[in-house]
Amino acid sequence: MKLIYQGKTKDIYQTDDLLTLKFKDDVTGTDGQFDPGANQVGLSIEGMGQLNLAMSTYFFEKLNQAGVATHFVSSNIPEQTMVVKPMKVFGLGLEVITRFKATGSFIRRYGAYIEDGQPLDFYMEMTLKDDARQDPLVTPDALVALNIMTVEQYNRLVLLNRAITKMIKEDLEAKGLDLYDIKLEFGYAEDNPSQIVLIDEISGGNMRVYRGAELLQPLELAGYYTRD
Amino acid sequence: MKLIYQGKTKDIYQTDDLLTLKFKDDVTGTDGQFDPGANQVGLSIEGMGQLNLAMSTYFFEKLNQAGVATHFVSSNIPEQTMVVKPMKVFGLGLEVITRFKATGSFIRRYGAYIEDGQPLDFYMEMTLKDDARQDPLVTPDALVALNIMTVEQYNRLVLLNRAITKMIKEDLEAKGLDLYDIKLEFGYAEDNPSQIVLIDEISGGNMRVYRGAELLQPLELAGYYTRD
Repeated sequence: MKLIYQGKTKDIYQTDDLLTLKFKDDVTGTDGQFDPGANQVGLSIEGMGQLNLAMSTYFFEKLNQAGVATHFVSSNIPEQTMVVKPMKVFGLGLEVITRFKATGSFIRRYGAYIEDGQPLDFYMEMTLKDDARQDPLVTPDALVALNIMTVEQYNRLVLLNRAITKMIKEDLEAKGLDLYDIKLEFGYAEDNPSQIVLIDEISGGNMRVYRGAELLQPLELAGYYTRD
Repeated sequence: MKLIYQGKTKDIYQTDDLLTLKFKDDVTGTDGQFDPGANQVGLSIEGMGQLNLAMSTYFFEKLNQAGVATHFVSSNIPEQTMVVKPMKVFGLGLEVITRFKATGSFIRRYGAYIEDGQPLDFYMEMTLKDDARQDPLVTPDALVALNIMTVEQYNRLVLLNRAITKMIKEDLEAKGLDLYDIKLEFGYAEDNPSQIVLIDEISGGNMRVYRGAELLQPLELAGYYTRD
């Protein structure tokens, strides 16, 4: 296994035609507080890597069983590794945010028009992964103008993202939990750019989930998805 | 005439059913340098109000003659006043930016993907007028989610904006000038929300125009549109 990338919450190794993601215990946030919208490691939580991997495994397996294309092949939870098919990302990396309740950066941008906690209906927006430029918001027109995505890819991604976030939202609802927002990443196989594929992870670090009025910390949320 | 609003570059008075805009000599910018994307008055230029009004009058008259709906009724250049029909703005005010060359805030956001001065094809984006939040970028989906605009209004605005910016770009080209970007504002009559109308002004303070490699200052650009 050859280390090819060191990320904020995961390292990536290459093995033959597949990649291995090594989940770390680091979580994004600011000032020691968890924030899925933050752009830096805010805290490290013992066991977080395993718990994030368990939750990701649960959702990827569920999606693969439902016939939704993802990069997931297998995972080894004790070793904190997930084997995935390599995919091309959009541009230098793109984050797809789906919001069911207005909060976080949405309120920082649009607080003149909407109050924290007000409902949104599968509202989707995208930001570019660019630490130096604070992950700028990007419109569908800009994605095309910047040659990051074709209109066809965009339209497919919108449908795929809606199906995936609906499944995750309903899964959380069945546990009495309320999904406020979630950040996913998508890619595509180099030889098939029109098939969009879910990549990265699906864990507590990428979503805001409430139980009643209480924001669940990633550790507590992951507890709902840990196998006995 | 009753003063109803004091803006950065214009004051607004009400007279019966019409509004009178009083053009000031102030220009947006930072550190004494002109910047049409800036959010504050950066400098004051003697005579600027008259010159901006002359240039706006030229374009509004040309658009009205071409059958394009605008708020313009008449202007009095020595008095620096323009009489307009009152229109509702979108939300608390929306700026529509059309870019033909990438520069300014576009490069600050997307400089990882495009170089300063690279061509764009009628690229349009919108920002909300909100000083406290640095005029945030807003996607078409957000305009609808925030109840700022309907999908129908958005589609009409895109077509109208394209026709108007095309006319302005060609007018400048005929003078040997190169339009890099332009910021327009639109509104609609309260009793006819589906007809989108060009409002505000069309002047050197709202656009970046180059002569060869040289950015024209608003004063010099307005000189091209001053009646003898």
